[in-house]
Amino acid sequence: MDFDKLNGLVPAVVQDDESGEVLMVGFMNHEALQRTIASRYATFFSRTRGRLWTKGESSGNRLRVARLLVDCDEDTVLIRAVREGAGKVCHTGERSCFFRELEAGAAGLAAAGGSRPAEGS
Amino acid sequence: MDFDKLNGLVPAVVQDDESGEVLMVGFMNHEALQRTIASRYATFFSRTRGRLWTKGESSGNRLRVARLLVDCDEDTVLIRAVREGAGKVCHTGERSCFFRELEAGAAGLAAAGGSRPAEGS
Repeated sequence: MDFDKLNGLVPAVVQDDESGEVLMVGFMNHEALQRTIASRYATFFSRTRGRLWTKGESSGNRLRVARLLVDCDEDTVLIRAVREGAGKVCHTGERSCFFRELEAGAAGLAAAGGSRPAEGS
Repeated sequence: MDFDKLNGLVPAVVQDDESGEVLMVGFMNHEALQRTIASRYATFFSRTRGRLWTKGESSGNRLRVARLLVDCDEDTVLIRAVREGAGKVCHTGERSCFFRELEAGAAGLAAAGGSRPAEGS
């Protein structure tokens, strides 16, 4: 894996292994990836909190790794995952973090509606 | 959109709108996202080349935007795309850049097989 392009991190895309839905994108450092492999549960490095966090560690909505893929130039991972708990991956209560269409509004790139909640678990 | 977390960039996940297959992940700066919205073709900022590039500009394997989604905290975009040309998104000739399983090898996180080709178009 190439962690050098992004200051020790790689993006990690999580996709529902059954439906194919893209659920979230987080970042992993080397340790987060090792822990993900060892535990079989998606674990990220939180840029805002500066520490590892296993998705769902507080909510129970964990993501069990079904398959772990790497891209051609080894700077991104794709996790095909099984949703546990209530299956609500987003901290807003949605199944997926990608629940809004981007609108090309007056500000150019304003997302449609709503506030911007803090990054959750 | 929040471009501040990653030095002016956001990850952009491209998913095949028909099959749901995750095809690639690139990075966009504000200009790349504006151009993507205006042209309806996925355009990224190449970190290695330091310039914008429209996916498939040389190969013809362009990615037409069917839907453009943003995540809950507005720091990642998801493009649901229609593959044009031969439909081979990866510069290796594969349909998707994610064609290898990650193996937890001796080095901990070695990807299976092969060299690491330069980032392609």
